[in-house]
Amino acid sequence: MQEIPIGTSYIYKGTILNLRSDIVKTEKGGTANREVVEHVDSVGIIAIDKHQNLLLVNQFRYPTGENLWEIPAGCVEPGENPESTARRELREETGFDPEYLERLGGFFLAPGYADEYMHVYLARELKHSPLVAEDTESIELTTKTTAEIKDMIRTSQIKDCKTIAALFLFLDRAVS
Amino acid sequence: MQEIPIGTSYIYKGTILNLRSDIVKTEKGGTANREVVEHVDSVGIIAIDKHQNLLLVNQFRYPTGENLWEIPAGCVEPGENPESTARRELREETGFDPEYLERLGGFFLAPGYADEYMHVYLARELKHSPLVAEDTESIELTTKTTAEIKDMIRTSQIKDCKTIAALFLFLDRAVS
Repeated sequence: MQEIPIGTSYIYKGTILNLRSDIVKTEKGGTANREVVEHVDSVGIIAIDKHQNLLLVNQFRYPTGENLWEIPAGCVEPGENPESTARRELREETGFDPEYLERLGGFFLAPGYADEYMHVYLARELKHSPLVAEDTESIELTTKTTAEIKDMIRTSQIKDCKTIAALFLFLDRAVS
Repeated sequence: MQEIPIGTSYIYKGTILNLRSDIVKTEKGGTANREVVEHVDSVGIIAIDKHQNLLLVNQFRYPTGENLWEIPAGCVEPGENPESTARRELREETGFDPEYLERLGGFFLAPGYADEYMHVYLARELKHSPLVAEDTESIELTTKTTAEIKDMIRTSQIKDCKTIAALFLFLDRAVS
């Protein structure tokens, strides 16, 4: 059960994404056009401080027109493994380096049109060790209990899919 | 705390998405380029049958190169409200029309580069009432208990972000 590409062309090669238009042979034997946003894989981090609170970041997300509360996250750079990305992004966005790091799982963010896969990590035993990055100037940091985060989801103060899904992976691990 | 667009141009206007490149004035007063995937808003549906099982669909997702298990979902069409989309998509993808429909929440799928917002609904009291749609030919349907779905997430048989996040919204509502 697959679709086989029989033609491909790049519409755009950009800074954070490429756009490709493919012609495919469908499962039923016909042909169809498939628009694909190419984006590098990424990591999201459930980071727990010594008070058992979770770290959340707030930043303006231009495509949505809003400031969003999210877990720390970022793109896997060329030659980097996802665990290294998790350590780097956590230091850049929150100033903390984790002594304990565990993979919780992962997921596709928008599989209808994008190839991005996000790896999710749990980070604990946080040591202050900031890394400065150009794109993290405007990030606000806070800490919240799990109960507070659940309440923020219920009241739509958190409306970021990866943050909600990563919290599920964390809470499911915590009880099992 | 906003970025103000000072220039915009369309790179592509396509079937399921458009791509735009904007120049923005950043919060710090500089300028930056922002690539934005324009995609219509969408709905995802937690549908519960009379045995309290959840409905899952499986389809080949070309951008990921894989068949994925997901909740039923689809795009809000022009002039449609999200509740009508939820009813239509559920009939098209599963053959069932819900007598009970409740909004559970919503989220942005990839706020770093896409504007798509997904509304999540809970559907119950399902009556057989199929609607045929061209794009639903290759969809496989199954039913699973909540425990089975949690196990599919743990073992990466489910690796779709919206499905995991929507399950969180449903389970959080169920216990609160």
